[in-house]
Amino acid sequence: GPLAGLTVLDLTRVLAGPYATLVLADLGARVVKVETPGIGDDSRAFGPFVNDRSAYFLSLNRGKESIALNLKDDAHRQTFEALVATADVLVENYRPGTLAKLGYPWEILEALNPRLVYAAISGFGHTGPYSRRPAYDLVVQGMGGIMSVTGQEGADAPTRVGTSVGDITAGLFGVAGILSAVIERQRSGKGMMVDVAMLDCQVAILENAIARYTAQGEVPGPLGARHPSITPFESFAVADGHIIVAAGNDALFVKLCGAIGRPDLAADPRFATNTARTDNHGALAAELSAVLATRGRDDWLRILEDAGVPCGPINNVAQVLADPHVAARNMVIETDHPVAGRVRMAGNPIKLSRYDDPPTRDPAPELDADRAAVLARLGKGGD
Amino acid sequence: GPLAGLTVLDLTRVLAGPYATLVLADLGARVVKVETPGIGDDSRAFGPFVNDRSAYFLSLNRGKESIALNLKDDAHRQTFEALVATADVLVENYRPGTLAKLGYPWEILEALNPRLVYAAISGFGHTGPYSRRPAYDLVVQGMGGIMSVTGQEGADAPTRVGTSVGDITAGLFGVAGILSAVIERQRSGKGMMVDVAMLDCQVAILENAIARYTAQGEVPGPLGARHPSITPFESFAVADGHIIVAAGNDALFVKLCGAIGRPDLAADPRFATNTARTDNHGALAAELSAVLATRGRDDWLRILEDAGVPCGPINNVAQVLADPHVAARNMVIETDHPVAGRVRMAGNPIKLSRYDDPPTRDPAPELDADRAAVLARLGKGGD
Repeated sequence: GPLAGLTVLDLTRVLAGPYATLVLADLGARVVKVETPGIGDDSRAFGPFVNDRSAYFLSLNRGKESIALNLKDDAHRQTFEALVATADVLVENYRPGTLAKLGYPWEILEALNPRLVYAAISGFGHTGPYSRRPAYDLVVQGMGGIMSVTGQEGADAPTRVGTSVGDITAGLFGVAGILSAVIERQRSGKGMMVDVAMLDCQVAILENAIARYTAQGEVPGPLGARHPSITPFESFAVADGHIIVAAGNDALFVKLCGAIGRPDLAADPRFATNTARTDNHGALAAELSAVLATRGRDDWLRILEDAGVPCGPINNVAQVLADPHVAARNMVIETDHPVAGRVRMAGNPIKLSRYDDPPTRDPAPELDADRAAVLARLGKGGD
Repeated sequence: GPLAGLTVLDLTRVLAGPYATLVLADLGARVVKVETPGIGDDSRAFGPFVNDRSAYFLSLNRGKESIALNLKDDAHRQTFEALVATADVLVENYRPGTLAKLGYPWEILEALNPRLVYAAISGFGHTGPYSRRPAYDLVVQGMGGIMSVTGQEGADAPTRVGTSVGDITAGLFGVAGILSAVIERQRSGKGMMVDVAMLDCQVAILENAIARYTAQGEVPGPLGARHPSITPFESFAVADGHIIVAAGNDALFVKLCGAIGRPDLAADPRFATNTARTDNHGALAAELSAVLATRGRDDWLRILEDAGVPCGPINNVAQVLADPHVAARNMVIETDHPVAGRVRMAGNPIKLSRYDDPPTRDPAPELDADRAAVLARLGKGGD
């Protein structure tokens, strides 16, 4: 991978941090997980399990190494400090203050290795009034606004985004921060601290919800599967389920009307422009729904694809993993774990022209499995 | 910013590509938008508008430059090729094949500049059976599985994630790919092509939904605001709305039970472990709901925070932007645009110890506003 030669010391647990270091490992970095002796990354205990190994842990930690170190033990601290001194990047996702309490605030880390890029991923960041508060994905999904725009229109019950976007986007912004600091270091010779907060990242992905509020004073709410300002751009019930139709501009709307045998709709002044269609959303949805309900999903997808109208099914996870395009893109890969055996998981979505994208990857490490190799690289035989 | 000195030639429109180049611009790269003469980025026409300027466009393109070039005009093509020859990175999010049809497949771009990092962000990627299909965010949200796990339990109507995670995650993976290729180039002296597909990125963020399916054969469905395997980790109705409670482990559950005056629940064998609590979710939710319904949101948040239980409000966008922590983290910034005036928008969530995080940023460019400056850097006076 393009990051070959980059060594990442990884103190992270569960999701936001491990997701960041997974991306780095997939890109070729050597990631050395430093785990608590006897316990390891908390997510080793998260179900579902395959032969007593967490499928969740296995999928987030493939291709990483593991060494168990007790950061309250003097000999282990020496080893840790030697690892810090030789690493390019250190990533942690403790609550702010935790690593400092162990004796390793940024000033000490920087003194140990002035070239170190230190990335701290946390719920609320290392500054600000909520800094020390605990956070989980769901907390920042709620506080950051994404839940206020996700769900059915007018619904009372709150809706969470079904995957942990609070953690995952923080992991991805963390990667961007880390790599930009590595690039800068090649010029300056100096590392720096990268402070990424999950809540900040939620604000950063609010997208047009913020523009609508700041420009118009409108507080956006949930709209089911519909786009707030593009129409028709939503799901429709068909004879045997639902499909997505995304006619993002006037030309696509004309194609859509032709494909479903209702060219008259394209000529209707109520539907002549995207703004008119959005203003008259209810009337248009009624017209389109009446036609679309008359046939099944596969028929409509074929008809709309042939007409060049962006559309698609609403797949469940089984359908996603069985999709021939997903397979062709190598987005379901496999690892062969010594205990869990062959485990399938999501692949790496970054495809590079000069690097392979192997369909099998190294498995996640057993706790402390790489102790000897990690110590040997430090020139240490001991503990 | 850490990416000062990096020049990004930006052919992107609307969201996934512009989001990637926004992150690069925020990190200090010079981003030169190449736009269609007279029209520009399609999103210049997307509402809401402030003094006739798109607030959506303004928020996604702050700090970038603009030059209008017609890639079917010979003189403009010469300028474009000179820009390619001197850029570090080229980003586009056309449908695969479009740039090649204009005469610029990767082989030609690479010949013009062997050091070029070429990032193509598209719906389905540059390989695979669906490669040439049009896609929008909603299409990949549907096809990629995230909609199948988002929404209320048992609901018939599909639910979209309320922000365009299909575009945004592709933008973020694009940034990771671009920066890793820039790092590699410092070793190899060669650029490469980075191919990122929105659908692939949706698969990559499915997280535990894939582990549950591959390990257990369970096809995950939507669960409202509840986590599939951690309990209690969900929203609860209180006297005046809803709050999030995220007791992610046994110790936090004991704290929660104490804080709400029901220590007996922590002693109940049905709720003794996370697995037991998840298996008996309905019974536990009934007990907790009965207590939580007796007081309002602010009371409970104060009580739970004091007890150290991760919790939070479900904020709408107005509440997010008014939050003192969001302000303290500089996550709402301002640009001063010559026509639109002062516009507020989301800030940069990557906070770096050696770089400022200015509360005001350069505004988005008017179409072709930087033509003279861009040409002057090429040593060209002409068009």
